[in-house]
Amino acid sequence: MRSDFWFFCPFRVRYAEVDQQGVVFNGVYLTYFDTALTEYMRALPYAYLDEVKATGADFHTVRTVVEYKAPIHFDQEIEVAVRTGRLGRSSITFALAVFGEAEDEPRSTGEVVWVYTDQTAHKPVPVTETLRSLLLKWEGAKIAAV
Amino acid sequence: MRSDFWFFCPFRVRYAEVDQQGVVFNGVYLTYFDTALTEYMRALPYAYLDEVKATGADFHTVRTVVEYKAPIHFDQEIEVAVRTGRLGRSSITFALAVFGEAEDEPRSTGEVVWVYTDQTAHKPVPVTETLRSLLLKWEGAKIAAV
Amino acid sequence: MRSDFWFFCPFRVRYAEVDQQGVVFNGVYLTYFDTALTEYMRALPYAYLDEVKATGADFHTVRTVVEYKAPIHFDQEIEVAVRTGRLGRSSITFALAVFGEAEDEPRSTGEVVWVYTDQTAHKPVPVTETLRSLLLKWEGAKIAAV
Amino acid sequence: MRSDFWFFCPFRVRYAEVDQQGVVFNGVYLTYFDTALTEYMRALPYAYLDEVKATGADFHTVRTVVEYKAPIHFDQEIEVAVRTGRLGRSSITFALAVFGEAEDEPRSTGEVVWVYTDQTAHKPVPVTETLRSLLLKWEGAKIAAV
Repeated sequence: MRSDFWFFCPFRVRYAEVDQQGVVFNGVYLTYFDTALTEYMRALPYAYLDEVKATGADFHTVRTVVEYKAPIHFDQEIEVAVRTGRLGRSSITFALAVFGEAEDEPRSTGEVVWVYTDQTAHKPVPVTETLRSLLLKWEGAKIAAV
Repeated sequence: MRSDFWFFCPFRVRYAEVDQQGVVFNGVYLTYFDTALTEYMRALPYAYLDEVKATGADFHTVRTVVEYKAPIHFDQEIEVAVRTGRLGRSSITFALAVFGEAEDEPRSTGEVVWVYTDQTAHKPVPVTETLRSLLLKWEGAKIAAV
Repeated sequence: MRSDFWFFCPFRVRYAEVDQQGVVFNGVYLTYFDTALTEYMRALPYAYLDEVKATGADFHTVRTVVEYKAPIHFDQEIEVAVRTGRLGRSSITFALAVFGEAEDEPRSTGEVVWVYTDQTAHKPVPVTETLRSLLLKWEGAKIAAV
Repeated sequence: MRSDFWFFCPFRVRYAEVDQQGVVFNGVYLTYFDTALTEYMRALPYAYLDEVKATGADFHTVRTVVEYKAPIHFDQEIEVAVRTGRLGRSSITFALAVFGEAEDEPRSTGEVVWVYTDQTAHKPVPVTETLRSLLLKWEGAKIAAV
């Protein structure tokens, strides 16, 4: 439901994103999710790219899930909602949902899991305190994993 | 593991599929999965497109999962393995895995769920007997859901 | 130059659109162009999809050209400018350009040619009077081909 | 015509590449072209990636042209033909064509222009002698620009 989210990223479906069945191709949802996550970070506001340069670590996507409930079509205006579902030591699990205009039930839901990874050692490293604080501030203490 | 699969679809990673981190973009895996499923159907051999025309039903993708374990890179030769994990009345759950050349451990695993859907009534309909028989022949009776 | 155009469609470069060289992949420009053309039609305002349904004809892209002058990068805000360069009986030649924020010189220029085509006979048919009038109104009589 | 080419790169059209009109989306042709150029380099054989590392220079695409003459569809087997049309000091102009199976007339033709560019100075540099010799061997002296 819409009320589960505070962040929404608007998209208008591009012709290139629609397949022969006249609906958005299943893989394109992950481009929407990835783009919405970039905007969510900007909204926190978390300077993702600056931190990546400063820390030598970067987020790797380790898991994605998409549930397709109702189709979306060419030229349709949609919103991709993002919230943090679980904040681990090195990992963040985002919950996402795709809403049509003025709709309360999502046409799609999904999950993206990021792991903060040292780019030299290729090992998980703790999420920065800056990001952790921002996520807790916006999403509440309930997201923190023990 | 490789030995869990009998079907493999080869790909060579295209430059357009690789992102700024020098690895295949997460959403591109779903294009690989979708393409491998087309080839799996051909290998059964199941005349997917002819059946869609004949029955007025078509498969809708209702769920996708991708687990990213090790990256794949530009120009790398990979194989996407497919098997049927569960055969329901209207739904088929495919298990997929991405292998590097001569590698036994997958670089990625995933799942795609299809539901056979009447295109007029937008309701699930039973998978055709032809496809059911082919899947049971190749994958064994263990895949059939009660 | 910016002053050659009255219509601009904003984009922010998505991560999925950038390749290993850290710049937008060459083929992605055609998705930008196609999307900008959709918005240009809406701005005229021309009800493209309604006309396609009413006339049984549709535009086919018969030629695209892209000149890449300076790269564009992840997260960069750009504008794709569109104008009609030449209006034939059945064909329309659009001139396009990609501008960085507050830049006067384009980072890319290009051309897209559409032919209005009957979907049954697969033959070119005249552009509708509605669209012809709108294009002449916005772009001036100089675009009309003899 | 087929006989204008010695190199052909096979593709089978993926579902993700087809749009609502049931034909390959116009921008996807540039992914086919780019991929076919990678295979053409391999066929010469030119170790593109090794040379890029050794020289600190890389090819930039500065111009692409696609002419769409007849559509291509989902699951269709096509071949993308490549030859070098013109070999300049720093630039190479490739001519490309898309053929259906056993067809002599192309469904699409196009052009891609590469400029060999120093990655530090961002200036054009001469194409390596290795590549120049290979291209002249395969394509004949007629391609060399004065």
